[in-house]
Parts: sequence; structure tokens; C-alpha cells
Amino acid sequence: MSDPSEVMWNEVVFSLAKDIEKIVMPIFGKPEAGKDVGTNVSGDVTKYVDKIAEDKAVERLKALGINIVSEEVGFVDLGSEYTAVVDPIDGSYNFTAGIPIFAFSFALFRKKKPVYAALYEFATRNYYEAIPGEGAFMNGEPIRVRPLPHAKAAVSFYTRERGVGLIRRVKRVRVLGAIAVEMAYLARGTLQGVVDIRNYVRPTDVAAGTLLVREAGGKVVDEDGKDITVHLSAEEKMNLIAASDGELLRVILEEVNSDGS
Amino acid sequence: MSDPSEVMWNEVVFSLAKDIEKIVMPIFGKPEAGKDVGTNVSGDVTKYVDKIAEDKAVERLKALGINIVSEEVGFVDLGSEYTAVVDPIDGSYNFTAGIPIFAFSFALFRKKKPVYAALYEFATRNYYEAIPGEGAFMNGEPIRVRPLPHAKAAVSFYTRERGVGLIRRVKRVRVLGAIAVEMAYLARGTLQGVVDIRNYVRPTDVAAGTLLVREAGGKVVDEDGKDITVHLSAEEKMNLIAASDGELLRVILEEVNSDGS
Repeated sequence: MSDPSEVMWNEVVFSLAKDIEKIVMPIFGKPEAGKDVGTNVSGDVTKYVDKIAEDKAVERLKALGINIVSEEVGFVDLGSEYTAVVDPIDGSYNFTAGIPIFAFSFALFRKKKPVYAALYEFATRNYYEAIPGEGAFMNGEPIRVRPLPHAKAAVSFYTRERGVGLIRRVKRVRVLGAIAVEMAYLARGTLQGVVDIRNYVRPTDVAAGTLLVREAGGKVVDEDGKDITVHLSAEEKMNLIAASDGELLRVILEEVNSDGS
Repeated sequence: MSDPSEVMWNEVVFSLAKDIEKIVMPIFGKPEAGKDVGTNVSGDVTKYVDKIAEDKAVERLKALGINIVSEEVGFVDLGSEYTAVVDPIDGSYNFTAGIPIFAFSFALFRKKKPVYAALYEFATRNYYEAIPGEGAFMNGEPIRVRPLPHAKAAVSFYTRERGVGLIRRVKRVRVLGAIAVEMAYLARGTLQGVVDIRNYVRPTDVAAGTLLVREAGGKVVDEDGKDITVHLSAEEKMNLIAASDGELLRVILEEVNSDGS
């Protein structure tokens, strides 16, 4: 078993993403991808595509001797200092529906500190990475958030109704159905905000995205404006607000915390 | 010049879509794609990618001697009985932003009656077609809408705030940023509804999608529940509600026409 501190994580994770791509892409948009194959640790239905992708990820990561947090298996404790927080298919509804927005999402922690994050977007074959203190990258090139005045911003916005005044204060709204991918778009500057205030997202969904956005110069906070801490848990649910800059963040927090009057 | 009634429209349009793919895909997600190259008939900014895709479509369709309605050139009247209503890149913001949801959208009318519609989704390479009275197809295979009870439905929903109660009454909301593509997803059964009540969409955006949804068994109406007529205009703006079935349509109309109390 290798020493995790000496593993070339970029190579290992990229190769794992490509292996998952090989097993899942043949069933993209096909009914078998969405077949119900059980229930995960949170009590949600596990889809066939989630299962086969996670099996591959768990097999590979276990061989490295690190702990794993993933949606279907929960917490796999191998007693390591290192923990991988994985979403083998972020956007699995999109995947089963034939909507080409989904990705493999991976974040590695040493104790509780992030040390590497990556996201592989299957449809575009873009590979995003974040390294604490070194920055964020797409296909090896540095990326940065791109702040815009809020009236020109494009924002992904998940709500059950609260804060809908935000819709009028930004230029474009998107709801793409794969929050890790949307955080990567924010990190590369093609969205300015990602907001989910449904108490719905889990650490597995946003661990990689959070590091990507922060290393690209953006902010990731809760609805009180406090920096989010991503816990090593597959079950916790949270609200998340990510933005390219303070001005947009202020507008989002204002709308999210208004009572609609 | 060929007689439009004898043209093999499926072959001509598919070949045009593939030619547009060749010229636009090299600049997918690149800054040059979004460069401002003028103003269209509606006064909106024309992006470089819209311009090169439309130039190709107009050149090819003019050679067939038919009239053309398209976003940037407006109405090109060649005195034909036939008119093609075209959106060379539906979802051009997505295209420039590197979001893989955009398509070539084409609808052919004889006088005011639709005779053929097609949509080519570049990222997935799916080719959708509709032929009045014969049905809707994806890559040559028949497709149908897939009705679900509203509480299980996935709906694309564009609003400036009105009707947001709808969010709580369906299972999933999407805002993918390419309405023609979303209507094709409805036609193939992976979304159950597409709603845009911003008085924003134009005939060029929805001409092909409307025929696709109807030929796949779905409904396309205005906010009063009346069947929409797609006019041969590049400028008119409208509201549009498309749904897989009457039950979901009723719920959507209820929310859209409620005063929020």
C-alpha cells in the first residue's frame, strides 16, 4: 500500500475518472442507467449508474488505503489520515435523462484539511483541479472567477421558493442539475454564482466544488454569510452560496434572507 | 433551383447541421465565440458564433429558393411558398460559456403550415425530427412524451418571479438555457414540461420545438391554455407552456395564473 502523501493524486484521479467514463458513457441517457438498485445511506434510491461508478471508485481508492465518503456506501473507514469525498456521478438524474451535464467529483482531505480536488466533466472532457494555495486549473491551465456587476451576472439558483426576488436582480438564471459542475463553471468564470437554499446538498456534492471556487478566487458561504466547512460526511445536508465576489454575494444574501416583502 | 416539395428535407437539414457543427465546435467555450459583431433585427447583440452559423444556414437555404426567418437577418423573402424558421445556435450563451447545451433548430412551413422540423444537439449528436401526422423521432426512432403525476415531474421553468409556486408542485426544476433543446427533451420524455412566462421567446426559438412536442403527443399553449400558433416572424415575443399531458398542464396554468396568495 502506497503512502498517500507520495501518491500523484492528479494522475490517479484522472485515470479513475477516465475508467468511470468508459463504464458509464455507453449507457448515457438509456433507461437501464436509472434502474433502482437499492437504497443509500441517506435513504435515497440508488440508480444503476451511481452504483457501477461508485463500485469502481471505491475499489480503486480502497487499494490506496484511504478512507472514503461517498453517497451510496457512506463512510468507509480504513483508519487513514486521508479521506476522499467522492461523488462518482454528480448530476445522475441528468445522466439517466440524457442531459449532458454531469461529472465525476473528487476531494481529498488530510485529517480535515483539503489537499486536492478534481472534477471531470464527461460531456466536454474538461478536467478541473484545485490545489490549496496553488490555485485552480482547467486542463492544466489556471482559471479564475470572473466577477460581474450583479445585473449582468449568470447565477445557478436552487430554491423551494424562498429568495426568488434574486431572479430579477441578475441577468441570467440557470438550474443545470449538477451542482459540482456548476461550481466548476463558476470557478472558470462562466457563471458568477451558485446558490442552493433547499437544505439539500451534501458534502459529497460540493466538497470538490468548494475548493475549486475558493482556489479560483471566489467565496463559498452559508446563508448567514459564514465560510462553509465541508464535513467528512455523506449524510449531512446544507445550504450553500458561492459567488465570484463580494458585491454579488451581498445581493444574494439580501434576497435569500429577505421575507419577500 | 429545386422544387421545395421535392427536396429531401431530412438529408438537407442534417447535412446543414453537420456543416454548422464543423465551423462552430472548434470555438465552443472560447472567448471569440461571444464577441459582439453587431445588432440583430430585434436590437439584441449578435455574437460571433450566431453570425457564422447563420451565414452558413442562410447561404444554404437561399440556394434552395425558400424564404428564411432567422434571429440576426430577420425575414428573407424570396417569394417562395416555403419558409424556414431557423435558430442556427439555440443556447448561444451556453455555447460561449462552455455549457454543453445548445442546438441547431429548424422548422419548415408551407404557407403557414409546418411541414418538417429538426433539431440537432451538438454535444450529444442527437438528431430530432418531427413530421406532421407521422410523429417525432430521435436518430430515426419514434419518441413520445412521458407523462408523470405533477409531483414526480421535471419541468424547465423560466420566470421573472410570477408563478414560482410551481417549484413546490413538481419534483425537479431545470433552467438549461436552450429552450428548443428543452422542448426536444420533453418530446423524448426526459422532461415533462417547459415553461417560459417572461414574454421572451421568439418563433425562431420555439418553432421546431413546438412541432416536436406536438408530434410526440404533448401540448404547447399560451398562458390562457390556448394552442400556440408559431408566426413566421423573428421579432414577436411570447409566453409558452409545453407539457406532456393535461394534468401537469392544468397545474402549471393554475400556478402561472395565480396571484401568489
